[in-house]
Amino acid sequence: MAAQDLYEKVVELAVRRGFFWQSYEIYGGVAGFYDLGPLGARLKQKIVGLWREYFIKRHQDLVVEIETPVIAPARVFEASGHVEHFTDPIVECMKCGRKYRADHLVEDKLGINAEGLSPEELTKLIREHGVTCPACGGPLGEVKLFNLLFKTTIGPYEGNIGYLRPETAQGMFVDFKRVYTVMRRRMPLGIAQIGRVARNEISPRQGMMRLREFTIAEIEFFFDPENPMQGLEERLAERSREKIAILRAEDRRRGEEKPSQYSLEEAVREKIVATPWMAYWMLVAQDFIQALGVPRQNTFFEEKLPEEKAHYSAQTFDQLVKVSRWGWVEVSGHSYRTDYDLSRHMKYSGQDLRAFRQYPEPRKVKKKIILVDKAWLGRTYRSKAAEVLRELSSIDPETVVKMLQEKGVLRVAGVEIPKDKVTIVEKEVTVGGEYYIPHVVEPSFGVERLLYVTLEYAYTVKEGRTVLRLPRRLAPIEVIVLPLTADEKLVRRAREIYMDLMKKGFDVSYDEAGSIGRRYARADEAGVPAAVTVDYQTLEDDTVTLRDRDTWRQVRVPCSRLAEALRSFLNGASLDDVGAKYST
Amino acid sequence: MAAQDLYEKVVELAVRRGFFWQSYEIYGGVAGFYDLGPLGARLKQKIVGLWREYFIKRHQDLVVEIETPVIAPARVFEASGHVEHFTDPIVECMKCGRKYRADHLVEDKLGINAEGLSPEELTKLIREHGVTCPACGGPLGEVKLFNLLFKTTIGPYEGNIGYLRPETAQGMFVDFKRVYTVMRRRMPLGIAQIGRVARNEISPRQGMMRLREFTIAEIEFFFDPENPMQGLEERLAERSREKIAILRAEDRRRGEEKPSQYSLEEAVREKIVATPWMAYWMLVAQDFIQALGVPRQNTFFEEKLPEEKAHYSAQTFDQLVKVSRWGWVEVSGHSYRTDYDLSRHMKYSGQDLRAFRQYPEPRKVKKKIILVDKAWLGRTYRSKAAEVLRELSSIDPETVVKMLQEKGVLRVAGVEIPKDKVTIVEKEVTVGGEYYIPHVVEPSFGVERLLYVTLEYAYTVKEGRTVLRLPRRLAPIEVIVLPLTADEKLVRRAREIYMDLMKKGFDVSYDEAGSIGRRYARADEAGVPAAVTVDYQTLEDDTVTLRDRDTWRQVRVPCSRLAEALRSFLNGASLDDVGAKYST
Repeated sequence: MAAQDLYEKVVELAVRRGFFWQSYEIYGGVAGFYDLGPLGARLKQKIVGLWREYFIKRHQDLVVEIETPVIAPARVFEASGHVEHFTDPIVECMKCGRKYRADHLVEDKLGINAEGLSPEELTKLIREHGVTCPACGGPLGEVKLFNLLFKTTIGPYEGNIGYLRPETAQGMFVDFKRVYTVMRRRMPLGIAQIGRVARNEISPRQGMMRLREFTIAEIEFFFDPENPMQGLEERLAERSREKIAILRAEDRRRGEEKPSQYSLEEAVREKIVATPWMAYWMLVAQDFIQALGVPRQNTFFEEKLPEEKAHYSAQTFDQLVKVSRWGWVEVSGHSYRTDYDLSRHMKYSGQDLRAFRQYPEPRKVKKKIILVDKAWLGRTYRSKAAEVLRELSSIDPETVVKMLQEKGVLRVAGVEIPKDKVTIVEKEVTVGGEYYIPHVVEPSFGVERLLYVTLEYAYTVKEGRTVLRLPRRLAPIEVIVLPLTADEKLVRRAREIYMDLMKKGFDVSYDEAGSIGRRYARADEAGVPAAVTVDYQTLEDDTVTLRDRDTWRQVRVPCSRLAEALRSFLNGASLDDVGAKYST
Repeated sequence: MAAQDLYEKVVELAVRRGFFWQSYEIYGGVAGFYDLGPLGARLKQKIVGLWREYFIKRHQDLVVEIETPVIAPARVFEASGHVEHFTDPIVECMKCGRKYRADHLVEDKLGINAEGLSPEELTKLIREHGVTCPACGGPLGEVKLFNLLFKTTIGPYEGNIGYLRPETAQGMFVDFKRVYTVMRRRMPLGIAQIGRVARNEISPRQGMMRLREFTIAEIEFFFDPENPMQGLEERLAERSREKIAILRAEDRRRGEEKPSQYSLEEAVREKIVATPWMAYWMLVAQDFIQALGVPRQNTFFEEKLPEEKAHYSAQTFDQLVKVSRWGWVEVSGHSYRTDYDLSRHMKYSGQDLRAFRQYPEPRKVKKKIILVDKAWLGRTYRSKAAEVLRELSSIDPETVVKMLQEKGVLRVAGVEIPKDKVTIVEKEVTVGGEYYIPHVVEPSFGVERLLYVTLEYAYTVKEGRTVLRLPRRLAPIEVIVLPLTADEKLVRRAREIYMDLMKKGFDVSYDEAGSIGRRYARADEAGVPAAVTVDYQTLEDDTVTLRDRDTWRQVRVPCSRLAEALRSFLNGASLDDVGAKYST
């Protein structure tokens, strides 16, 4: 199978050259955990940097980044619904005790799509088709739900449960009001975060593609549902004709497997994407994936069916990229989370997390006003009266009316006010706006998958040799310095140039071991875009050759202009242009 | 207390402007967890970027960065000694059940230094001095040890314990052999990591200074203990006369509280610092802390007393910085971990994690050679004979000798070879080198503390207004664009300039609300080094004013050269120089 070979080749290269490998190798490895080596850690940093540029820096007028902890108290994930819903079906062998993810087992054995089936349905399928333990052939028990949150205890008290976050999103929801206030109540407001998350997968078996711990880069983008175009007008106008490749849920139901092209304007107008900002971020995501080196035709958005969606989502698109071994895999998810999360946190925390909508013109509205017999209040509660009045003013009048109806008495600030001391009047007042719960769209990326995809698309073979054609700006090593031979004079000059480029901030490497051809090959395989070779001519006229990883062609550049020439080349100039511009 | 006031002012500013705040505020907060807001997250990124520059990028010839998971299987922290040693003393009130960190409680109540005392000693002090529960006055129980590792379960099997790492270091130790191989066995080898760690503190009460989850930036620097100067010669020569401020353990014992100045050369020669690379990294750390804005005299290295050191350390220095509320606090630790960690992982994993030391000249050594009667072996074990020979060749001959002496028989690859079929000959062979366990020095920084320290040192008051004098290259917002008034023409031009600077990659903000004076004040308080003001002259000659946060002085710059002028200013040029160079 040629397709499988590519995956194996990429992984072999990744391990050998230090992009990634399974964690805890010396202890036999632990499934679902991967380490990034020297090249992988830098590649990841550059991918994250690119994401930051596309999603945050170019949208600084609207999007800010925050950082919140991995560990959260249980209450947060009770509110978010994860304690209840973030589960996978699990089944245990009654004989050997091994545990399996039940839907995957059923899919493997019966060749059907079992996503979204209930534990009862899965148990029934297992019984009906006589599915047994793949390891020992023993009978399988009842399918149950297994919660994927990693659980721990915060502090020395045992009841104090904490969970590791499975997404960074709840950090943004919990912080929404604070960030909204800090940003001086501007809407719309995007809150981004790039951070570690953990999902306790039952038995992950897809290497870097399904990890128990990984990095998410995501934005919770808060907007006014009654004004969903706010802040988007200019950007939409600029890009309205650009196409997004989408495979709709209704088309999938009909058996369609290929996406259609919709312009941004059409996707919004026809409500193919439920809300405009979601469509816009999908377009940005499409650009971003191409910047990693994935051709346009190898990525599209697949709308999830209702049974495939997460519990919080009104509409979800997975952005898919074609990879060798697994076909189309998800690299990002785009969910319309509506006001689900903020509403839940309002309920669970008792805090007001609403934003304020200014009316274009102030409006006159009828409003109930609560009046308390102040003379009585002062006599009865004396020094406490002021506090009672203050607290009363912060309570919604409708709540007061309800309380009086139900209890016949008003309880405020720890005191009681009988019904006959309270008067309710209705008054016409002028109001400038109203409070509302913002809606949210969420573009969310799995960074380690992006890293794998980037590597696979960069992997090429030229004349029988592996060349890792990483986009220049993503290359972990930007330039390598090579003395042509081991001649001491060449080595000395090459090391000077190497140290000089290091001081100038380049990601630079140096190699003097082996033939020059072998060293070029090693650099090509590590994806180094530029090689600088110090040869005998260097000692005469202080020029070096600059070699292009992809074409293997070279130009000569004076050392005095080398840094400049390199910057230009790394920013995308062709070798010819660099040669022409900097050769003298 | 004026000193306390500064801390409170910094925290008040940090919360109000969005540098940091306590996590899970809407749920009442959880001690030991802090969020970074929009300004804090960027400041942290820039501090991390600066650290990367000082410790990694300037040492690319020796130091690489990796990334490993937060969650590790129990075995890793059994090997590292953390399961046994990473504890704090805890005591519980027998009446109300509250739990306290026993040494801190004793220190608070008795005013003595209780660091390093055993649970028995602490219990004795509590009994002798009648220390009771600070909350309810109830009697206290026995002091016990509480392990600070956050515990969880990996996967669906309950016995599969995992811990959250309390330091990133074990990732580098576990990966040492892999990285050493990937880097083509170069020594010395620094492996750096910047990542989240978690420590389940008993009752953290110092805000950002003592967190249960935070970011560490650290290097495990592996070197040959028989050649401890390797790779350091040039750098040492360049910097040998530079001074490091150190307070030695022996001087602390004598009651000394002030550091002395030692040149790098002296620190190494006199073994004030146990090994040369540790001294070098301390010098780099000293530079780095100054680059955050801490004056030279406000940081020094305090050598830890034996009872204060971690279990793995032969010598430790804490780098201290003076802060308002807590006096001298640790911002980095410098430990000589020797071969402790690698030896432990070799023992626990059964893997060979040694490096290879090439002899300057090949040496002739006497070596025992194991010869097996091959004819007998082939007859007896047939197809298995080859495997037996292969395995035999990988066993240390001394082990074979010992096994034969003790058991009279050799067990290899599951078969037995009687003594009389084995001959041991001694031969002189030429060897090129030998294996050894590298030693390690570790510079380790707590990033959130660095962030707090940076803020506190930036906090100044000028003419009654707060000015956050962050080093320009660390400023979360580099430049703010302001229309002089709300005049539509000025606003339009200002927004154009704003979007243009955004496209050019600046961290830029925009503000049109309120008087220009108030907006300058807001920007100064957020540490924005440069303000660009669009006024009526802008509409005439397309120039803007560029204002310096620290001096409040302004120069005029043409819009066409604004980006260039800003880059120069942000890179450290004075406003006068920028004005002179770019004014036309």
